[in-house]
Formats: sequence, structure tokens, C-alpha cells
Amino acid sequence: MPGNSFGTLFRITTWGESHGEAVGVVIDGCPPEIPLNESVIQDMLERRRPGGSFVSSSRKEPDRAIIMSGVFKGMTTGTPVMIMIKNSDARPESYEKISDLFRPGHGDITYQAKYGIRDWRGGGRASARETVSRVAAGAVAKAVLEHEKIYVSACTVELGGIKAVTHDPDAVSGNIFMCPDTKAALKMEKLVKDVKKSGDSVGGIVEITANGVPVGLGEPVFDKLDADIAKGLMSIGAVKGVEIGVGFKAAILKGSENNDPITRRGFLTNNAGGILAGISNGDEIVVRVAVKPIPSIEKEQKTVDLSGKERTISVRGRHDVSAIPRINVVCESMVSIVLADHLLRQRAVGR
Amino acid sequence: MPGNSFGTLFRITTWGESHGEAVGVVIDGCPPEIPLNESVIQDMLERRRPGGSFVSSSRKEPDRAIIMSGVFKGMTTGTPVMIMIKNSDARPESYEKISDLFRPGHGDITYQAKYGIRDWRGGGRASARETVSRVAAGAVAKAVLEHEKIYVSACTVELGGIKAVTHDPDAVSGNIFMCPDTKAALKMEKLVKDVKKSGDSVGGIVEITANGVPVGLGEPVFDKLDADIAKGLMSIGAVKGVEIGVGFKAAILKGSENNDPITRRGFLTNNAGGILAGISNGDEIVVRVAVKPIPSIEKEQKTVDLSGKERTISVRGRHDVSAIPRINVVCESMVSIVLADHLLRQRAVGR
Amino acid sequence: MPGNSFGTLFRITTWGESHGEAVGVVIDGCPPEIPLNESVIQDMLERRRPGGSFVSSSRKEPDRAIIMSGVFKGMTTGTPVMIMIKNSDARPESYEKISDLFRPGHGDITYQAKYGIRDWRGGGRASARETVSRVAAGAVAKAVLEHEKIYVSACTVELGGIKAVTHDPDAVSGNIFMCPDTKAALKMEKLVKDVKKSGDSVGGIVEITANGVPVGLGEPVFDKLDADIAKGLMSIGAVKGVEIGVGFKAAILKGSENNDPITRRGFLTNNAGGILAGISNGDEIVVRVAVKPIPSIEKEQKTVDLSGKERTISVRGRHDVSAIPRINVVCESMVSIVLADHLLRQRAVGR
Amino acid sequence: MPGNSFGTLFRITTWGESHGEAVGVVIDGCPPEIPLNESVIQDMLERRRPGGSFVSSSRKEPDRAIIMSGVFKGMTTGTPVMIMIKNSDARPESYEKISDLFRPGHGDITYQAKYGIRDWRGGGRASARETVSRVAAGAVAKAVLEHEKIYVSACTVELGGIKAVTHDPDAVSGNIFMCPDTKAALKMEKLVKDVKKSGDSVGGIVEITANGVPVGLGEPVFDKLDADIAKGLMSIGAVKGVEIGVGFKAAILKGSENNDPITRRGFLTNNAGGILAGISNGDEIVVRVAVKPIPSIEKEQKTVDLSGKERTISVRGRHDVSAIPRINVVCESMVSIVLADHLLRQRAVGR
Repeated sequence: MPGNSFGTLFRITTWGESHGEAVGVVIDGCPPEIPLNESVIQDMLERRRPGGSFVSSSRKEPDRAIIMSGVFKGMTTGTPVMIMIKNSDARPESYEKISDLFRPGHGDITYQAKYGIRDWRGGGRASARETVSRVAAGAVAKAVLEHEKIYVSACTVELGGIKAVTHDPDAVSGNIFMCPDTKAALKMEKLVKDVKKSGDSVGGIVEITANGVPVGLGEPVFDKLDADIAKGLMSIGAVKGVEIGVGFKAAILKGSENNDPITRRGFLTNNAGGILAGISNGDEIVVRVAVKPIPSIEKEQKTVDLSGKERTISVRGRHDVSAIPRINVVCESMVSIVLADHLLRQRAVGR
Repeated sequence: MPGNSFGTLFRITTWGESHGEAVGVVIDGCPPEIPLNESVIQDMLERRRPGGSFVSSSRKEPDRAIIMSGVFKGMTTGTPVMIMIKNSDARPESYEKISDLFRPGHGDITYQAKYGIRDWRGGGRASARETVSRVAAGAVAKAVLEHEKIYVSACTVELGGIKAVTHDPDAVSGNIFMCPDTKAALKMEKLVKDVKKSGDSVGGIVEITANGVPVGLGEPVFDKLDADIAKGLMSIGAVKGVEIGVGFKAAILKGSENNDPITRRGFLTNNAGGILAGISNGDEIVVRVAVKPIPSIEKEQKTVDLSGKERTISVRGRHDVSAIPRINVVCESMVSIVLADHLLRQRAVGR
Repeated sequence: MPGNSFGTLFRITTWGESHGEAVGVVIDGCPPEIPLNESVIQDMLERRRPGGSFVSSSRKEPDRAIIMSGVFKGMTTGTPVMIMIKNSDARPESYEKISDLFRPGHGDITYQAKYGIRDWRGGGRASARETVSRVAAGAVAKAVLEHEKIYVSACTVELGGIKAVTHDPDAVSGNIFMCPDTKAALKMEKLVKDVKKSGDSVGGIVEITANGVPVGLGEPVFDKLDADIAKGLMSIGAVKGVEIGVGFKAAILKGSENNDPITRRGFLTNNAGGILAGISNGDEIVVRVAVKPIPSIEKEQKTVDLSGKERTISVRGRHDVSAIPRINVVCESMVSIVLADHLLRQRAVGR
Repeated sequence: MPGNSFGTLFRITTWGESHGEAVGVVIDGCPPEIPLNESVIQDMLERRRPGGSFVSSSRKEPDRAIIMSGVFKGMTTGTPVMIMIKNSDARPESYEKISDLFRPGHGDITYQAKYGIRDWRGGGRASARETVSRVAAGAVAKAVLEHEKIYVSACTVELGGIKAVTHDPDAVSGNIFMCPDTKAALKMEKLVKDVKKSGDSVGGIVEITANGVPVGLGEPVFDKLDADIAKGLMSIGAVKGVEIGVGFKAAILKGSENNDPITRRGFLTNNAGGILAGISNGDEIVVRVAVKPIPSIEKEQKTVDLSGKERTISVRGRHDVSAIPRINVVCESMVSIVLADHLLRQRAVGR
């Protein structure tokens, strides 16, 4: 299969370039009779929309979701749901002058090598704008999951080295970083402003959790629930690492410390992050991803052009200082899509 | 698709339970005219075979690979290669007495919930024995890759909290831990002996690298090379985290630090781990995984039985103290399978 | 996988309902650097457009193809090509009065049973309008094939029992039925006018041929070239039978009559229809399909409504008398898509 | 995906060559808790076993099915079921002398062109022996279907031009041709003996029916139930045509004759063959396939050798005079596999 589809039974196919006509997604396999309308999708899109704050790009995209198919009188019909979002604030001309330059940290150089041709307008298909389609699909996945009382959310647990120390779920919506630690959020704010001034960017860590997931989701042995989550998250451009439960910390624990003891009322701890042998165990699913700093920076960097000549580049477009917090809803979407998919897959198992 | 297949064009399907007749793999899509024989596969299997040292299980499996199809006069023919490995030292009776107990940290409880039935003999399909099939397939993938001068290897960079400080590739084969730091290996040896005595187990970190990978492998946007590597590795039972290049460290770097500057002779650094926008950039591919401590330990743990009654369990079988170093060749195999698959996929792109 | 995608490496996903906003297709896996523009697609769409003659529906759809992604400066880029066609002459109100009636020979009753809900406007997703997307994708497939000097075409060899006796390729474009026998075409014309008057409809047989197909396309043992062609064609709503080469006539031949003798200059006959053991043999590929009569007829028929009550129905919409010749380009498209897919698949085999 | 797998949720992967060690199949996605043992599979294999009568090859294969995985204490566990059948009567040496000759009507020439190498022993992977694996998988599919009271069967409706005129289901098991018309069977017997004497072979038509299929199976728009059945059947080497319901006869019917009128008690006729718009309608599913005459004949035929030199060939191995009736159970198996797959797929739809 080519690479623009994801999922097995709840299967999405995205299309579109950053500065083309539009971006969009076909969702095939969405169950029938799920209530769905454009405002449900719009609410999710608002969370990744640029222009929200000083962290984000000043690109003004209204990002209006249009449902083109698969919904009849407010309900899904079981046929493909196509959602389209027009690119209204595309300014390809601003990219013309760097059209022959490979931006460090970007896919310019690898797309050129892979295909022998590339749409250089804003990164084309490799642009983070592609994630709009993921979020639109994520909104539909969440509608399917919430129908079964499964809830997925994401928050920022680290930014530019500043860690959330406390973890108050109610704090998340109270700051622009979606950080569960209000004090840490204030420090993040100061840092981001400083970094912005210096023409640089920062990375961080996002945590995604899912509650209400029934025991039994995940398909041994390759399509384990954590394996599919890892793939879904690592397929987001800025993500460089994924861990489940205690994750990398498992490397320094003893078996007696890492195993979650089982009691009649469930597991005493959740080091496993809600997944055992690739199958959900009924506990909260906990995943974290490492997000790299935005590669587009004003600071001058070394690079080469199409002809191989050495040059320098200073990227001055309308870029975010950090992919966080806009990326959070993208992560949440990918986990939701994986869960919706495995929910349907487990139905086929027949239990 | 059900979950026992992996890959798109170089596609493997594994089968078999820990204490059934045999385990094996069908490799569909292996290119024709690749030299292949049983000894090539056997060499890889030897590297994950139990019984090698005090770190490993005392289960004595000769693990003899038999090529059942797809090879004619020492060459692959383009038809499915089936490789079978008999389970000769199966002792299911030793599991009979814990057949109604769910071992903490194991898939016993989730398999039971998912399917309503499970082969409890040694974990059945959830056993690490399933990885024999992955290694057999990995040997074939490596044959395909080496035909194109691509080389994949793995080493241990951390065990039970002891980190490799130096990184001498020649040291790897000189110690049982496959550690590139001989001094660290000595400390690991002492630690493992202590842990064994205490009836416990330890985890660690394995690094996998690939050299000679041509630029252009990886399919945007979901089947990115790093996304497929992440899935392949996270699908190994003991793996709880995957990172590419600098990985989680990217979260604390600035963009100007993390971006790899481009020159005429290539990239000046390799923070990207050889992958940009999901496509190989020609540099060394560098991946690390977090391996959890073996869950089967002698130390007494809390659990429940099939009827939900609270019990304690002390697992006394023939278990490893650490999945490392036997898991290393499994990791190496999964990365090799992903690379072989994407090599074929890029051929279809036609460049 | 859900059912709205087709193909493995050249993979299409269609979406859209007959009287929704639009219909369209995402083509994933189209090779880069293939010249493509909207007029190429438009030319194909014109061939299935209604309103062309007395055989066809009087629905007036301009059927304007819009390329939404995947093409940059007149060339494909290797990223998904999305083509959208708006539904401009949708008149859902004309279906309102039969919205609770199941039309005989249509999918109304099975869609309702399968999904519990259906878009009854003109058959929704089950409408023949869905084939617009196939033709748009077929145009892209043909561009890929013609780049390799492979040509696919279709003609009408039987209509309402009238058979083409002669087979003059030049005659095909000279009559509205795309029949290679001008005399037969005149008889077909008379028949169709009579049938139209009687409020009934007719079926027929379409033959699709492909020239220039290199030897070696087709993947043993399930994805044989003829197996994939059979699936592609049988997935067209009106098709009830598919045969390759001599097809059903093979049942009455002896082995000595049916085998195509091999000489240095090729096969002496082509009973195989260009495919041996599922792999193209370099000869012309020849396939025929049986097309059922249009089920929407004015003649009164027995049926039931949603509540199960027995009713009669006379379908008075703007329907064709025969799916032929509009279906011809749909058949040609499906065969083209299969061939483009197998062309890419054979590249992966590496020869 | 490579071509040796079939199905989406009930997915089979076959492996093995005619004169290699063994042939076999991995069935992934078989639901848990289905009773299964080797004798169930053996019974099906007996029906395609050679050596049964004067129609068939004198090759004596005990064809002993061995379940290697996926079954525990007589029940499926939800993990892959691997079934292996050893090749005990392989006589590759008899093929050595024609190892450089391309047999007309066989895949010798196309395999060589596709892969550049081929296992010429008895056709290797292209041999009809490959269908043993399909029948083993078919036995498992039938077990799944019969658990839901769905029954699939096959009979011979034409052989060498002799048609069954009457259709008595009870007659089928009373003659070696599995013909529902005892008188026709007698004529077939005489014909086959004559043809055998002349060193030639004959084809025919097999009809497959399925009863008890619930309404709703089949996935619009490409994975229609009839499309998947057509693919499954056309993927059998000897099949050159597939038709559903009235099939090719639909081409000469009027819409008013072809549409099946709907009443409260169901459809009055079954021209649709149990499938409407690609979805089962609750009626009997009726499919017919055209089977070509066995290409291996003693009569001398023209061909070329590997070097391109013109030669003649007379194939003297142990070949059947007709693929019928041994192919009947293969057809029945493929239809069963498709139905089992769509049964699981419909579960995922959630109704």
C-alpha cells in the first residue's frame, strides 16, 4: 500500500499540500448511525489552528471543515466520510525565493531525492499543515469512541526543558500550553518569548491518555495496541520518540518494581500504561512523545541548493516557536484513530 | 487485516505457540535470485538461542531452521519462503500448575479477556518464543539488504541502569551483553549475577543502527520510515519506548542545536538519526528502544486466578534475568524487515 | 480494510453519494513526474457523461474534474492525487416520494439491512454515479500506462441480444454504442428505441482489450492479473459475469484446442486472453463482461416499503435504457487501474 | 501486499511448491472457540485428493493435514492456524527432462519471465497442488460458517459440453463427477474415457451455492461480495470465467425480466444470485465458473525451450483428464473463505 492511509477497519486516507487548493481526508469504515456534523469537527480544528497566540504562526487559516460525503441528516451512513478544508491563506510566493534551497531539519532534501520533484510551496505535502486532515479524522474517531464512553486527551508535560511538576487535569485548559502545572506554564511562557526573540525554537514532551478503554483491544503480534499507537504518533513529522507507561524508565526498574500487581479490583500500579502484551488491560492508557524543536528558524544555518552549492538560509515565514501546544490535538487525534480502529477490530473477533 | 503479518511488499506472517509443535514464518514478497540457505538463518537464530549463558533461560532449544518452500537450488524464487523451527524442549507440564493464574506483567490476563480462551503453556502465542520467527525472517531481510550493501546491527547501551560510556563497535562481540563498552559490560555482569540471586530481573536500552541505507526510503505520510520502525520495534513484547536519533533529548534542544546543517559532503551532525520527514537521508540510521525487565520472576507477587480469587505467584520456570542481549537480534531483525520492505517500496516509486 | 479502496500500490479510494455535494477519488501511489492536467481527466469523463444521446439519462451533469492535490506545474509529484467532481444537477426531491420504497434490482434493500440507515437520494452511494470517480482514476491510470506504451480500450460486442458479427476497431467510434460492427449498431439503435417506448431496459456484453502489456505482470497466487481484473470489473454495479480470453467457451474445448501453441515469434492463438497462470504473457489481454439491464424501469414492479408492506413501483427518473455504452469507459478504467497497479508491483519484484 | 494472501479479516496465506517439502497455509483471523481438529480438514482434503478414479492423476498423495498452531484442546484460540501437508509422492526427476521446456497452457513461460528463475519441478508454485492449501483453509472457513448455519456446496453442471439438464441435489454425491443429473453423469463418464484414450483433456462448468447467508454481507463499493467471490474463484488456475446468478444470460434479458420482484416473504425469483449492489440479500448465493481443459496432455504440441528454440512436447506425467471434479471442492473452499471473511467484516460494522 502507498503511505497516505492509516488504520485497518477505521481507515483514513489524507491528501493535500500546504499551499495547494485544500487539504482533506477520507474516512472509510466509520460505523453507521454515529451523530456527526461540521461543528464537531470544527471544534477540534480550532485547537490546532494557527494564529492563536504568540507561540504560533501568524498564518490566518479559518480552517473551515466541510463534510463532503458519508453523512445524511446528521448521521453517518457507513459510507466514506470525506472532509475538506480549503487553504485560504496560502502565500506560495513567499517560498519562491527559497524554492531551490533545502531547509535544514525539513523534508525538502529527502522529498527531492525520493521523487525527483517536489512542491516546494511551504513544504508541500511535508508541511505540518497536513496534520489538519489528521485532526479532522480524529474528530470523527472521537465521536465513535465517545459513543462507547472512551475519552482521549493530551497535555504538555515538558517544554524547552521545563517540566510539569504537578499534574492537575483542570489546569490544562487554563493556559495556552495545555500544561497541567500552572506554575510551569508561566515559566514556559517566559522561555518561549525569549526564544522567539533569539530567532530560535524549542521542543518538548506531550502526554496522551485514554480513559474508558475496554480490556481486549489490540491484535497480537504485530498490530499490538502500543505498536499501532507508536506508529501513529511517530508518523507525526515533529515526533522523535514514543513511550508507553513508564517507558524509558522501565530500563532502570527491576521486574519486581515494574510488574503491576493484580488484585480483584484491578492493577495496583499502571507502569504498563494500560497495555499488556499489546492488548488493553482496562487501565488508563498513557503515552508520551518527544517533540523536536520547529526546524524553521530565523537563525542563519548552513545548507545547499538544488545544484549542490553551499549556501546559508534564514527562514523568515510565519512559523511557530514550538509545535506544542498545536501538536497536542494532533497526537490526541492519532491515538483516537488507533483506538477507534481497534474497537472495530475487536468486534470482528466476536466478543 | 489480522495482526500476525508485518510489512507491505516484504511481508512476513508468523505462526506458532511456545509449547506447540513448532513456530515459523512465511515471507511473502522476497525478491527472486537472492542466495539463501538454512545456515544463513541458523547463524541469526544462534544469537537469540537460550542456554547461552547465566543471563539466559536454561531451556535448551536447538532451534533448527528448516526452509520449507520458496528456495530452489540455493536461490529464492520469488515465491513464499516458509521457515519452520520445531519446539523440541517444550515442557508444558511445568505450566499446568499455574494454568489458572495470571502472571503479573504478562499477557495471560489480556489474552483471556480478548479471546475467552488461551493456550496457557508458557504464554502460548504471547511468549517471547514467538520472536524466533521474527529472527528467521530477519535473516532473510538481511540477505536482501546485504545484496544492496546495507548493514544493520544492534548493541546494548544500558542494562539495569549501567550505561555504556564509550562506544567501541569492536567491543560488542567481545562480551556476552553485546555492549560497546567493555568496562560497563563487566559491571553489567556483576549486576546480573546479583539480581539473579535475588530472584528478580532487569531491563535496559538497545541501540540499532543501519549503514548504507540509500536516500529516499520511507513513504509519506503515515508509512514514514521511522513510523514503521517504531511499530516494528514496539511490537516486540518487552519494548516500552522507541526513539530515533537524539530522540527524547530533542525535547530539550533548540532548533539551532537540533537541525543538522547540510554541506556538500553531507550533514554535519546526525541528530535526525538518518531520517528526515520520514524518508532516509543517506546518513546512518540510529534507533534506541527501552526494554522492560523480564516479568517472570521468582519473587512473590500479587495476582488473581481465572475465578478472580486473589493469590500469590512465584514464577520458577527457566527464565532469563534480562531480555538483553537475546532481544538485540530481534530488534535488529525488525529494523531489517522494515528496511527490506521500504527498499522494495521505493523500487515501485520507480527511481 | 473497508471496501472503498482498490489496488495495492496504485491505490484508489472513492467517496461521495449521487445527490451529495460531490463525488471524488484519492489516488495514492501514482508515480512522480507523470504529465497530468484536468483536460486529460475531462476527456475520459465526457465518455461516461449522461445526456449524450437517447440511450442515456437526461440528467445534465457538466462533470467538471478538479485536481485538488498531487500535481505541481503539470506533473504528478508522487503524493496523493485527489480529483473532485461536483454534483451540480442533483434533484433529491424527485426521490423523496420513493424514499421508503425498495426499488427491485437495486441496493436499496441491502444497504438498509447492512447499515440500518441509507441515503435514499438517487441510490446514494450505490448509485452508478459513483463510477465517475472510477473514470477519473482511470484517466490517471491510463496516463501512467501510456507513459509505458500500454493502451486499454473497450467496445460493445452485444446489446439486448444483438451481437457484433464483424470486429472493425475503426467502427467503434463511429456509432453511439461503441460497437465494432456498424450494421449491428444500427439494429441496436432500433432495439433501444423500441425498448425505451415500452418503459423497459436492456443489457449486453462489453469487451475490454489491453495492448502493449509487458510479460510478467500479475502476482501469484491470489493476486493473479485475471483475478484482480475480475474483481475490479465485478465490483461495477451492473456487471454479473467476467471472462478472460475464450472464457466460458473454454468449458467446451479440448486441451489440444484450448492451449495456445508457442513459437519463436510468440503464441499462435490467444485463447488465454494474454494471461497464463495469472501472469501476463505479452499477448493482447482480452476480457468480456456481462452487463445487466438497468433496474430502474417505468414498467410497474412488485416491491415492499420500509415497513414491509407490499407495494408497486414505477421508476420515472432520468434513467438510461442501457448501461452500455456509458459503462464501457468504466470497464476500461477498472482494467487500466489494475494494470497500472501491477506495473508498479512488478517494479518491486526488481526485474 | 505480495500475492500469496487472500481475505481481509479471515486472511489466509499459502506457501509451498508441488515437489518441495510440503504445502500449507496460515489462517490469520480465525475467531476463537471454534471446534477444530485434523479430521475435519482431512475430510475436505479427501475430496480433492488425486488417485480417486480414472478422471484423476495417479499421483498417490495421502495428503495428511497437520495442525501446527492455533488450536488448543480442540478449539481455535484466535491465534494463527497453520496447517501443513507434506508432499510424500513427489517425483521431481520425472520433470527433469522437460525442465527447459515451456509447457503450453502452463505458467512455465510467464514465471520464468517474471522472476528470472523458476522451480520447474511439476510447475513448482504454479502447480494445481497449491490448491491443497486452499482446501485446508476452506475447511476452517466452513467450520466458521457452519457455526452460523451457513452452508456452501459445489456441483458439476457441465463437462466437455455435456450439460446437467435436471438438478437433483441428492444425485451429486452419487457419481464421481458430482453432477446433479445422473444421466448426464453417465455421458460424462463415457466422454472422459474417450478423451483419455486420445491423450487429450476436457473442461466444464462448476456451480457453487451458499445457503443461510444472512442479509448484509459485502462491502461497498470495491469489496462487494460478488467482486471478492469473482477474485477468489478467478485466482484458481484453471478458471477462465465467473458469473453470478443469471450471469451472462443477464445480457439478453429485459430489466422487467431480470429484476427480482420483492414481496413480504422475500424475492419471487433469484436472478441476482443472492447479491444486490454487492451485498447479500438473504437468498441463496449462486455462482458458476468456467473451467478450462487441463493443459498437460499427451498429444504433441508446439513450444519453445529456455533458449528460444522451437520444440515439440508431449506431457506424459500423472495428469487428470479434467480438473473437474477435483476442482469443485477448491471452488467451494474459495467461496467459503470469502463468506467467512465478510461475516467477520460485517461484525465490525456493528449490526
